[in-house]
This record gives sequence, structure tokens and C-alpha cells, in this order.
Amino acid sequence: MNHRFVANQLGLLLLVLSGLLVALALYEFAEYLAGTVDELTAIEATLSAAGVGVVFGTILWWYGRGRSGDIFGRREALLLVALTWFLGTAIASLPFYFWAHLQLTADQAHPFKSFINCYFEAMSGLTTTGATVLSDIEALPRGILLWRALTQWLGGLGIVVLFVAVLPTLGVMGKRLFHVEVSGPTHGGVRPRIRDTAAALWVIYVALTAAQVVSLRLCGMPWFDAACHAFTTLATGGFSPHNASLGGYASTAINLVTIVFMVLAGVNFGLYYQLTLRSAKNFFRDTELRVYLATMLIATVAVTVILLTAGDPITTTDGRVIEARSATTVVEAAFQVSSIQTSTGFATSNYDTWPFAAKAILLMMMFVGGCAGSTAGGIKIIRVWIAIKVILAELERAFSPHVVRPLRVGKTTIDPDLRIAILSYVIGIVALFGLGAFTIMVFEGGEASFTTAASASAATLFVVGPGFHQVGAIENYGWMTDATKIFLSFWMLLGRLEVFALAVLLMPRFWRG
Amino acid sequence: MNHRFVANQLGLLLLVLSGLLVALALYEFAEYLAGTVDELTAIEATLSAAGVGVVFGTILWWYGRGRSGDIFGRREALLLVALTWFLGTAIASLPFYFWAHLQLTADQAHPFKSFINCYFEAMSGLTTTGATVLSDIEALPRGILLWRALTQWLGGLGIVVLFVAVLPTLGVMGKRLFHVEVSGPTHGGVRPRIRDTAAALWVIYVALTAAQVVSLRLCGMPWFDAACHAFTTLATGGFSPHNASLGGYASTAINLVTIVFMVLAGVNFGLYYQLTLRSAKNFFRDTELRVYLATMLIATVAVTVILLTAGDPITTTDGRVIEARSATTVVEAAFQVSSIQTSTGFATSNYDTWPFAAKAILLMMMFVGGCAGSTAGGIKIIRVWIAIKVILAELERAFSPHVVRPLRVGKTTIDPDLRIAILSYVIGIVALFGLGAFTIMVFEGGEASFTTAASASAATLFVVGPGFHQVGAIENYGWMTDATKIFLSFWMLLGRLEVFALAVLLMPRFWRG
Repeated sequence: MNHRFVANQLGLLLLVLSGLLVALALYEFAEYLAGTVDELTAIEATLSAAGVGVVFGTILWWYGRGRSGDIFGRREALLLVALTWFLGTAIASLPFYFWAHLQLTADQAHPFKSFINCYFEAMSGLTTTGATVLSDIEALPRGILLWRALTQWLGGLGIVVLFVAVLPTLGVMGKRLFHVEVSGPTHGGVRPRIRDTAAALWVIYVALTAAQVVSLRLCGMPWFDAACHAFTTLATGGFSPHNASLGGYASTAINLVTIVFMVLAGVNFGLYYQLTLRSAKNFFRDTELRVYLATMLIATVAVTVILLTAGDPITTTDGRVIEARSATTVVEAAFQVSSIQTSTGFATSNYDTWPFAAKAILLMMMFVGGCAGSTAGGIKIIRVWIAIKVILAELERAFSPHVVRPLRVGKTTIDPDLRIAILSYVIGIVALFGLGAFTIMVFEGGEASFTTAASASAATLFVVGPGFHQVGAIENYGWMTDATKIFLSFWMLLGRLEVFALAVLLMPRFWRG
Repeated sequence: MNHRFVANQLGLLLLVLSGLLVALALYEFAEYLAGTVDELTAIEATLSAAGVGVVFGTILWWYGRGRSGDIFGRREALLLVALTWFLGTAIASLPFYFWAHLQLTADQAHPFKSFINCYFEAMSGLTTTGATVLSDIEALPRGILLWRALTQWLGGLGIVVLFVAVLPTLGVMGKRLFHVEVSGPTHGGVRPRIRDTAAALWVIYVALTAAQVVSLRLCGMPWFDAACHAFTTLATGGFSPHNASLGGYASTAINLVTIVFMVLAGVNFGLYYQLTLRSAKNFFRDTELRVYLATMLIATVAVTVILLTAGDPITTTDGRVIEARSATTVVEAAFQVSSIQTSTGFATSNYDTWPFAAKAILLMMMFVGGCAGSTAGGIKIIRVWIAIKVILAELERAFSPHVVRPLRVGKTTIDPDLRIAILSYVIGIVALFGLGAFTIMVFEGGEASFTTAASASAATLFVVGPGFHQVGAIENYGWMTDATKIFLSFWMLLGRLEVFALAVLLMPRFWRG
């Protein structure tokens, strides 16, 4: 294990993160000069966090300086990824923590006075989950709100680059899944290829973000809100600077724009990358994309029918009541389905009051998730699709065991090894979901309902954010015990890194040789 | 499809069932002569049911007479199995139905006055599930109680013969699983081999039943009760002639004997069969057996520790209260774990009042189940074991994708095809569990709690019987809607036939060619 090079790269990443914090401080200073913010505490907190980042970043970078990355392989990549998220989260949580202690007096209570809460919030940000410990989000200064949104945007970019550019090129897990449909250009070495792909992805990500900011602004949303929401939509994160999430705008136009960009964010970014290389006609031929859109459409129709049949009025997150039998119901259904399926977690309606069948569909969509290579969570469309095809093929084998039919997705044949990998992942993640629900129940010792525990487990493992009941659309995670919050921080990361990248670190064989 | 031969065999099976009902009527007449029963209604009901069976059996047999079984293949076997259970259940439910209508006046309410209830009870019997619609079991005459126990015993024998002797020989699904460890003698043709193996299994099954009857009698249980409980223990069914199940005897000796025979019933009967052919030393070398016993031991220890830590007194099914910190707690824990894991479903304690962690372990054991080729339900030890090994191997591949290690269970290498088959089964059954819970919730429209619905789905799919909350240890299924009961009857059969045998009938390709 080339651990010095890992330290070196980790140090660089922390230094980049610190640089971003300094830039944030400049923005906060501009807000102060413009008079929209009265206090300097946010700036002090941000700069202090940057300072800590610089110190640790420099030490790590210095420790591993001069080491060649030539023997940088799979093990190093996996270790670096895990450490980046663990340590990056620690630095990213500091602006929250410092701000609460600088701004508030000793007798003023605030969730951010606890470091565990800050770490949970930052992890929820960097993993693009969107679960929050805050009940009053709007009480935060704009700089801190922007940082909260930025953690998601950065995390989303990191995940896309990791899963589309880095891991497949290194031949780590992702490869086998991406080779199903996406195969990048194979000329050139490993390192330049990673750099080229990453640069292209970065441009695509920024362009989509800019497009959403402008679209939201055109719908009447202020620039600041538009930026924050665009950052957290492209990341399918779901943090909002408002307590009522997007429900407070009461704007169908804003909801529709958000739906479009949530859906776009749930698409494999490798496809967008291919779009820049080749013709557009291959784009809609992608099996995963088709199944993704079809699933979302079917779920939306089902939820709409259930809501219309039940006929109960819909309550928005800001307490307005919508007639059940109106066109808005369709938008609400589409919004919640796309928000949950793409693991964004924005809410316009308090879906927790919807009929059981509608909630069950939303829960199922948490499991299904978006496309591989997107910022979305869940099991991922391509895995679910292949798993269903394998199971149907197995059913047929029960009565005609000698018929061997190749299993195809699009034009690609899925070999037995890939089938085993995908089925294993599905079983593993479902087992982890159960283990998570169990752990939360035990940690909360009767304070959490089973619905709460089960949906919290799914909502963190599948990086959705809000769940049901006590962690529902208008609730938060702040009331949970510290033990649960630490556990859920780990759970979000486990889900975000698709289990394997983190779980291998627990295997003794990983560290040998 | 040789459907006439299927009809012929089905007719024969119905005639055998009718013959058994006639034998039961003779027993009932003996009880009447002995003066233990005052009424002749049970005899009339039993003979009427036999009459219906003879009529339908003869028609079916006559329709398919003279047809050769030479082209009797996989399709025919699967169809025959499904039809046997559906139609056999209809005949087996008639004694209940006729008895209720002959015995009770029009204004006397009884669950058995509804044919759907009777069908549910008979299906619960023949699938060895043990879920009941009755709240007052003891009100039934002895003949009907004996029939209830016999349906389980017959169903258990049928399943063992089917999965150990018939399906593997025909090369249907079971084969691939059984070849893991059990490989019978391969000389001779298919038909004689089935007959030989079936005969041996029948002897083993009867011998174990007789041993349990005698053991229970020696512990002080009356002959009738001993016979009923032995019938339903060997079948891991769990019907008891008493409202309080086995809790009413308040006898640690009876509980211990029952534990032993439940554990024995959860072992692969193919192993007992091998025991009669070869030396005994291979028996305990069987991987599945070892894992089965180890799982049960670990679960028992865990539940015991949880019960002792919580320290709450334990309430038995007949309302007695047991000190928490006593040796009895160990027996209660062992009893419930073995009863649930082997899918028997007997209860001595009202485990529904146990701490959440203990109940979660019991639920997990429902999923895990007993050994393949036993009368137990669940996913089955061997599948769970292989699935875990495959997933761990996949974890390792994340960082060393080129290392290919053969996957072994005992001395057998598990080829990729078998891995895919097993993983598919696990995913399929877990998905069905979720679908079942959803369906029950929708059918009950808010009358059932989610715990009730989820545990009812698991308890029927894994042929356990009792679940939690409204279908808990001291509750029953009688209060559910007819729609749910019909659905659950199907669910029990789906679980009992390990999904594939029933699900293939729904595939259009099955019926072609």
C-alpha cells in the first residue's frame, strides 16, 4: 500500500477544500458590504475552518511529498476515496460548528453547537443525501446556507467524476457496470484519460447548473435561492435554504423546472459525456435511460391515481391546502416521485399524510433510484433491470433447464460474473437496509417508530434525505440520539460509495500485501 | 403437455385423500362408541367430504385412464404439484365446512361457516404453515382436530417426498440445490428410483413421528394430544388442539422434547435417507446441518441475553407469568427460536410482548428458515449460506478483480449458474415478502398495522404461521377480510412450493409446446 501518496493526494484535496472556503469567505464579505448580513461571525467561522483545513492539508501533503503515483492502484484509490469523504466532511462541518459557537451565547441552544450534528449535516451534504438536523433553516446566515448547498454540489461532482471517470478506468467495480452501455474512448493511458473525462464531466455539470439557475430566476426565484437550489438539484441532494423546502414558492413553474432538472440529474453523466463525443441518436437508445424514464412515469401515474381516488386534500410543506381533484395533484405527484426516485429529497407536499399505497410506491422508488453514473442514489435502474431479467430467466429454467439464452441489455450481453455481482449488490444493500432499521430501533430505544427507523435507514443508505413519519417531509433528524446520528453519517457514506468501496476497508485481506 | 395423464394422477391422489377421510371417519366412530364424542356430525361431515373426493377423483382418474406416463416430464410434474395442492386443499377443507353447517344452527356464528375460512385453514394445514382462523380451537370435536393435524402431517410428507425424491430426479430446480451435498444413488431408472427414495422417506417420517408420540406420552401428555402434536411437529406445521398451543401444559419436559423434534424436522430428510445407506460420520460433516445448528444456537443465545437484560417477566400463551431471570427463560428462548426458525409456529410464550431486538431476531429467523429438503420453510440455510459466501467473494473482487477463487460448500464447488439461481431466489422471495405486506395493507385498508401486514406476509410465505401484533402468538387470522385470506392461501402455497414451481405456471412459455 502506497500510503504516503494517498496522504499526499488527501492533503491536496483538503487544500482545495480550504481554498473554496476562502472564496466563500470573500462572498460572505461581499454580502456584509452589501448590508444583507449584519454580523461578521460567518466570515470568521469560514476562515477558521479554512485555516484548520490548510494546517491538516499541508501536513498530509508534506508527509507524502515527492512520492510517485506510479504504483497507485485499486487499493490506494479505494482508501483515498473513503478518507476523502471522512476527512473532507470533518473540514466541511467546521463552518457550521464555528459559526454556532461564535454567533450564539452560551445559553442559546442550536443544533450546530454539537459537533456530531455538524458532522451529520456536512456528511449529508457531501454525500448529497439532504437529511438535516435543523428545524429552523432560515435562521442561518446566507453564507452558511450557501456552504450547505455547496457541500452537496461538490459532493455530487465528486461522485460523478469518481464513478464515471476514475473507478471504471482503474478497473474498480464501476467498470463492470459501466461497460454495460457506456464505453469511453480507449486510446491513451489511464491518467490522461481520467483527466480528460473528468474535465468534460465538470463542464457538463457546471453547464447544467447554470441552466437551472437561469431557469429558476426566470420563474421568479431570487438569484441566491436559485443558485442554492440549482446546486442541490444537480447533486440530487435536496438541501433548501427554506424551512418549507420548495413548497414555500407556491409556484407550479418553479416545481416543473425543478422536476426537469431532477430528472436530468438522475441520468448517467457518462451519457452526456458520450453526447459530446458522438451523435445524439444513441442517447435515447440507452436502455437504462428508457427504463428510468418509464419507471418514473409509471410511478407518477400510479401515485396520481391513488391521490385522485383517495380524494383527500393535499397539504403543502408550508401548510397550504390543495384541492385533491385538480391539475396541481399531477404536478405534486410528479414532483414527489422524481424527488424521491432521484434521491433529491425536495418536498412541496407533506407526502407523509398521503395514502399508504402512495407512500409505499415512494419507498419503492427510494430503493430503485436513478441511473448509474449519476448523482442519484438507490440500487440504480440498471441493476434493478438486470436483476429482474435474471430472475425471469431463472423462472424459465425451472421447467426447461437446458435452454440457455444469453441475457442482453441493449446490445450488450450480461455475462454470469456481472449477473452475480449485481445480484450480490441487491441482496447486500437490502440486508443493510434491514440492519440499519434494526440499529436505529435499538439506538433510539423505543423513541422511533418502526416506520421512522425503516425509512431513515433507506433514506440515508439511498442518499434520499427525508423519510417517513418522524423523519418525514416536514420533520428532521435533529431529535435523534448522537449514536444514531453517527451511525447514519456512516450509513450515508456507505450508500453513497455503493457499499463496496467502503466495506472492503473492513476486510483484513485488503490491508495485506 | 400430457394433460390427461396429469388428470389421471390427480384423480388417484384425490382418491387416496378420500380413503384417508374414510379411515378418519372410522376413528371418529370409535371415539363415538367410546363415548368421548356425543354427536355424529363430525362423522357425517368427514364421510360427505370423502364422497365429494371420490366423485371428483373418479372423474379425473377416468378422464385420463390408460394414458401412458412415458412422456411425463418437468412441465407435467410442476402442473401436477400445483393442482394437487389447490384441489387437495379444496377436498381437505370440506370436513371443516360440512361440520360447521351440520353441527351449528343458522344463528350460531363460527369461522368454519365460511368456505374461504375452511380453505385457508386447510391450505395452512397442507402447506404446513399453521396459521389459523380459529380463536377457540378446543371447541372443535376430536375428529376434526385430528384431521387438522393430519393435513399438516400429510402436507409435510408430501413436501419431503417432492423435494427430496421427485423433483431432483426429474431435474427440476431442486436438483441444482440438492446436488450441493446430497446425491442419491444414480443406478436404475427414474421411476423406480423415485419410488425407492419415497418409500425410505416415508419410513423415516413415520419412525420419527412415532418416536415423538411416545416421548410426549412419557412426559405426561395424553395420547390424543401427543399424536396431534407429533403430526404437526414433524411437518413443522404448528397446529395444536389447544388454544394456548403448547403453553398450556406448563411442562419443561414437553417443551424440551418438542424442541428436539422441531430441530430434527428442520434437517434435510435426504441426510436421514443417506444415513440409512451409508455410515453415520458423514451426517455431521454436512455443511448445511452445521450452519443450521450453529444459527439456531446463536439466535437462542442472543434472544436469551436480550430477555435477561430487559428483565421483564415472560407471559406464557395461557397467561402464566414467568420470572425473567430464571432457567425457564433459556427454554422459552430456545423454544421460540426453534419454533420460528423451523417454521413450526408453536408458542409457549407470548413473544409479541418481548423486546424489539428479540422480535427482530425471530423475524430474521423466519427469513433464514431450516434446511433444504426438510419440512421447514424460509429461504433455507444452504441458500443463505451460499448467498453470504458469494457476497463476501464479491467484496474481495472490488479490490482484486482478477483473483478468481472457487466457491465451495463442503467439498462441492458452487458453479456460477447455481450462484445466480440462489441469489435470484433470495431477491425474488424478499421482493415477494414486500409485495405481500403491501397487498395486505391495501386489502385491509387501514385495519392492519404495518407490523401485522409485514409479519403476516413473512409468516405465510415462509410457512411459519403466527406473526406479530394482530397475527401474533395469541392472535389468529380470522379477523382478516376474505380478500386477504384468499391472497394468503395463495401466498402459503407459493412459499411452500418455493415460488418457482407455482410461478412458472403464470409464464406463457410454460404452456407452449
